[in-house]
Amino acid sequence: MKRHVGIVGFRGYSGAELVRILERHPHVTPVLMEHRVDPDAPPFGWRPHPRVACTPEAVAAEGLAVVFLATPAEVSMEIAPAMLAAGAKVIDLSGAFRLRTTEVYERWYKEPHTAPALLAEAAYGLPEFCRSQIAAARLVANPGCYPTAANLAIRPLIAAGMVDRTAGLVCDAKSGVSGAGRKPTLKTSFSEVVENFSAYSIFDHRHTPEILQNSGLDEGELTFTAHLLPLDRGILETIYFRTRATRAEDLLAVYAGQYRDEPFVRLYPPGQAPDLRAVQRTNYCDIGVKLDGETGRAVVVSAIDNLVKGAAGQAVQNMNLVLGLEETEALL
Amino acid sequence: MKRHVGIVGFRGYSGAELVRILERHPHVTPVLMEHRVDPDAPPFGWRPHPRVACTPEAVAAEGLAVVFLATPAEVSMEIAPAMLAAGAKVIDLSGAFRLRTTEVYERWYKEPHTAPALLAEAAYGLPEFCRSQIAAARLVANPGCYPTAANLAIRPLIAAGMVDRTAGLVCDAKSGVSGAGRKPTLKTSFSEVVENFSAYSIFDHRHTPEILQNSGLDEGELTFTAHLLPLDRGILETIYFRTRATRAEDLLAVYAGQYRDEPFVRLYPPGQAPDLRAVQRTNYCDIGVKLDGETGRAVVVSAIDNLVKGAAGQAVQNMNLVLGLEETEALL
Amino acid sequence: MKRHVGIVGFRGYSGAELVRILERHPHVTPVLMEHRVDPDAPPFGWRPHPRVACTPEAVAAEGLAVVFLATPAEVSMEIAPAMLAAGAKVIDLSGAFRLRTTEVYERWYKEPHTAPALLAEAAYGLPEFCRSQIAAARLVANPGCYPTAANLAIRPLIAAGMVDRTAGLVCDAKSGVSGAGRKPTLKTSFSEVVENFSAYSIFDHRHTPEILQNSGLDEGELTFTAHLLPLDRGILETIYFRTRATRAEDLLAVYAGQYRDEPFVRLYPPGQAPDLRAVQRTNYCDIGVKLDGETGRAVVVSAIDNLVKGAAGQAVQNMNLVLGLEETEALL
Amino acid sequence: MKRHVGIVGFRGYSGAELVRILERHPHVTPVLMEHRVDPDAPPFGWRPHPRVACTPEAVAAEGLAVVFLATPAEVSMEIAPAMLAAGAKVIDLSGAFRLRTTEVYERWYKEPHTAPALLAEAAYGLPEFCRSQIAAARLVANPGCYPTAANLAIRPLIAAGMVDRTAGLVCDAKSGVSGAGRKPTLKTSFSEVVENFSAYSIFDHRHTPEILQNSGLDEGELTFTAHLLPLDRGILETIYFRTRATRAEDLLAVYAGQYRDEPFVRLYPPGQAPDLRAVQRTNYCDIGVKLDGETGRAVVVSAIDNLVKGAAGQAVQNMNLVLGLEETEALL
Repeated sequence: MKRHVGIVGFRGYSGAELVRILERHPHVTPVLMEHRVDPDAPPFGWRPHPRVACTPEAVAAEGLAVVFLATPAEVSMEIAPAMLAAGAKVIDLSGAFRLRTTEVYERWYKEPHTAPALLAEAAYGLPEFCRSQIAAARLVANPGCYPTAANLAIRPLIAAGMVDRTAGLVCDAKSGVSGAGRKPTLKTSFSEVVENFSAYSIFDHRHTPEILQNSGLDEGELTFTAHLLPLDRGILETIYFRTRATRAEDLLAVYAGQYRDEPFVRLYPPGQAPDLRAVQRTNYCDIGVKLDGETGRAVVVSAIDNLVKGAAGQAVQNMNLVLGLEETEALL
Repeated sequence: MKRHVGIVGFRGYSGAELVRILERHPHVTPVLMEHRVDPDAPPFGWRPHPRVACTPEAVAAEGLAVVFLATPAEVSMEIAPAMLAAGAKVIDLSGAFRLRTTEVYERWYKEPHTAPALLAEAAYGLPEFCRSQIAAARLVANPGCYPTAANLAIRPLIAAGMVDRTAGLVCDAKSGVSGAGRKPTLKTSFSEVVENFSAYSIFDHRHTPEILQNSGLDEGELTFTAHLLPLDRGILETIYFRTRATRAEDLLAVYAGQYRDEPFVRLYPPGQAPDLRAVQRTNYCDIGVKLDGETGRAVVVSAIDNLVKGAAGQAVQNMNLVLGLEETEALL
Repeated sequence: MKRHVGIVGFRGYSGAELVRILERHPHVTPVLMEHRVDPDAPPFGWRPHPRVACTPEAVAAEGLAVVFLATPAEVSMEIAPAMLAAGAKVIDLSGAFRLRTTEVYERWYKEPHTAPALLAEAAYGLPEFCRSQIAAARLVANPGCYPTAANLAIRPLIAAGMVDRTAGLVCDAKSGVSGAGRKPTLKTSFSEVVENFSAYSIFDHRHTPEILQNSGLDEGELTFTAHLLPLDRGILETIYFRTRATRAEDLLAVYAGQYRDEPFVRLYPPGQAPDLRAVQRTNYCDIGVKLDGETGRAVVVSAIDNLVKGAAGQAVQNMNLVLGLEETEALL
Repeated sequence: MKRHVGIVGFRGYSGAELVRILERHPHVTPVLMEHRVDPDAPPFGWRPHPRVACTPEAVAAEGLAVVFLATPAEVSMEIAPAMLAAGAKVIDLSGAFRLRTTEVYERWYKEPHTAPALLAEAAYGLPEFCRSQIAAARLVANPGCYPTAANLAIRPLIAAGMVDRTAGLVCDAKSGVSGAGRKPTLKTSFSEVVENFSAYSIFDHRHTPEILQNSGLDEGELTFTAHLLPLDRGILETIYFRTRATRAEDLLAVYAGQYRDEPFVRLYPPGQAPDLRAVQRTNYCDIGVKLDGETGRAVVVSAIDNLVKGAAGQAVQNMNLVLGLEETEALL
């Protein structure tokens, strides 16, 4: 028997991707939950799905086991408590519950946190590192797209002491436009983006504290810069640091130890690096390493699809854990 | 001594292109006129230009010989009378003054015409056919982008009796996104346009009556369809009809007769057709012809840059005529 | 037990798409067949698949039930007889076996047909019209991409007498670049295609006789023009004709009668038309109709993904028929 | 009286850009020199220009004051001596004469240097730093695209002691596809590049020694990574280092001192950075700085058009110097 799961924000890019993925899930039926924040735009796709209002009553009436919030942080903070109270588990794709304290949240998001009581219980939804907490959680904070690609690449190396932290680590990140959401803005208009490329939010991107919190790096050790690519989907991060390792194989061995049984992390042969094509429309994070042995300079390339492993795919991976289903269901 | 000319709407794509072209004009200085309709966006470019409010007083104070209106039709209808009264000549890039009657305007634009008194005196700004009227006009209605490419291709053939009008003529038009203006909308958002292509406004595009009025075709003889290309600049129209001509050379001879002395219309050898690359960032309209002699089926391809010959370039061509300057100044 | 099927040309775009689709087919295992014509390029994807030489011996050794030829026509003409002789059924994605006579083939392909004996027995692989012949065939000629979109839109209307054939029908077709194959050429180089658009092969595209043969139109009644879009995947055709119908609903009723039970043809509400986004990465052909009742002018828009319904997806649909499997397997 | 200048390789992207720029130069007439290495492709543009063979006799007959070589390095090494012997000055856009020793050349270019005698006399064509040598030179080695953007940003800071060289400097560079030249390859095919992004030549890009030689950095202090953007024109480099400066203004003051009188370097206000749109189709290099004062981490963004300041524009700037003309002629 299929479980019903609700999706708030199904007209946005992440929400629509959620519907698409869940349409091929054998054990789950998506229920579209109408909410005022949805952009005034037709939903994607074709198959008819049940539609309900985004209310606690609908959670009960539809027997929703999980509700996905593909909504802005301020909306998630408003909806999440009500959905939890109605008995659903919540997987939130916004930044509302990713940071551990309201202080850090308010410093980087420049707005008050309106549901601080939930911060303590939210599990950070990076299954490769938080699998058991996710499986036990009522509320999962699905990671940001940049932090997913960054932390899968950085965290094992920090833990293994492979990064010279005094010299610092640079994460030069590039993202497709869908990461900015579906609300029309001048910055994401076609004629502004096509044949263009730019850096943005240098030193003050909201994803910075999320990378810090989960990578093991301290502030001041990480320089993170986001760039906007003239393409729709995908994030590629080029990561620079100094290491005591002398061969790419040394770093790859650390990754191999960490990710041996992980279905969604793929490692490249020494000296090779993924491009976006390799990961688009998949839930994979692909990682490659190149190293200059004489000087200990290392370059790691990490690539994901921002809407899949960086949002909806990872959210379904988390849902599978929360519901006790096969973790890879609908994702391979 | 340089003449001063005003530009209203200089933050939009056509207005910015006007500034760019006028920056290399030896006899004219652009003056940017601030107006509330301008999008909340930084203006383009770098060189400092005088800025004034969009008022009759500014026209007098700056001694503006010409004011360009790169504004929506409803704004142009509001501003044009005041600018004219202040003594400037007006070149309007909107659809406000292109159609001859308020009836036709209101049928296609679905809004009342608020400056009907000016319709009679407005010259239609297609220099290849209306040069003397433009030179003598106070108000020039700069042609629409689609009609410019269409009428330069169609009108000489209709006049020469080369089109079988009972069988009808099809104009399948494709435009880059800048033609939709700079205001952010979902339809022109990067992630909606990239890797996509669509037809729009089938049978009811506002440029249809403008093509009819200036081509010699009657309603019912013309089928015009617009499409949105995933690129920034350019219009290419593929035009289909039956003809009594038996060789491409026959139609090309008609064009050659019409355009022999025209600086901005280029003809291709028989059987060859322009692509957009040939015309981008130029004021040219390029035309190619292919013909199946046995059946009399003809295909004409007409290409322009929608922001240049389809908007700002043609507006400067008209300004040169209005001011008695060399018609090609700043445009070659 | 899974059937083994061979793929020749798996490094090309259609061949790679075949592998991708077959990877999710529950009853079939893809076997990659190495052939000298394959571009010197890494194959796509990640999963390991059996690899064999493209020889009759391999067909026997692997027990290949079907061999897909994703190869140029001249290669298909060379390989197909050997594969058939070795006992495999063949689904050919090239133009080698689509036309009924060597005369027509040689006129349009400008090269001799080297396997004329197979022309008579080849089934044309458009399941919506040739389902029973396909199921019984040893050799299936998978349709061209442009003809698939064209004939699904045109053929029912011709059969129902809904097109004024004396006035002729125009098919203005636009395709993404992947339709040109993976061999590097100047015409398909990034910097030549991006921000560009062009018509090509006016009056002499090789797909013209294939549309004629299967639509019911006679030569001289059809004007077909291909255009190259600056995008990767998708074909959209805008089709113009005069009709005795007076409402879009009349034509849609013809389509509904024809396609009522077809899983891969979707009809749009009157006046609405598909864009490429609706069909990309699907095996659907989407059709929309708009009609001017007063003059009987009709515009039909037909859209497919050129690599799926226009190539690999339709080939798998045909394979399902040939092997007696569910026709939609791996395609929904 | 106009000077005649020859262009070898005028069918490539840099060569075509040279023609375009020289067409608007008031003191120079371009002469197209046919050479076997030119791709089998139509030249760009429309205006008729004199065409001659690429021979010493043509240099004499046409009285060519300068010959531009927009050719691969191995071709430039072959042609340059003959052109010089015939009395022309040579501006070479390849990497043939940029490095000071054959050893370095052969290590990075993996091929023998066949004109070593010219290395000593070649002036490095970065006018902002080598103006007087260029003006006096017979042979100018026009800088590579990546090194131009890199060295204009890095060199003043190194000279001023503003970079902590022990911690190293990272240059994360992204380029449009035209930088790879016009020869069709799989890597630059449209369907491979569009919607894709990748790093390449990590640690072993040929431009690395050129940056080292001219920036003041030593090997091991610089980590340079190139990436391929899905766009036609432009290079943006994001440069990371530690500094003793505490405010962006400190670094901008260094640049301002260096570039006060430079016509083609533009500085941004503190904390702001250029995008590619700002520099496309211009000869400008735009530089922006952001700095975290507490930790001394600096991010510098440098942007150019790879075909203009990164190739043809800078070549014309050098030609102006060589011929004693106004340095900015045809470039503003």
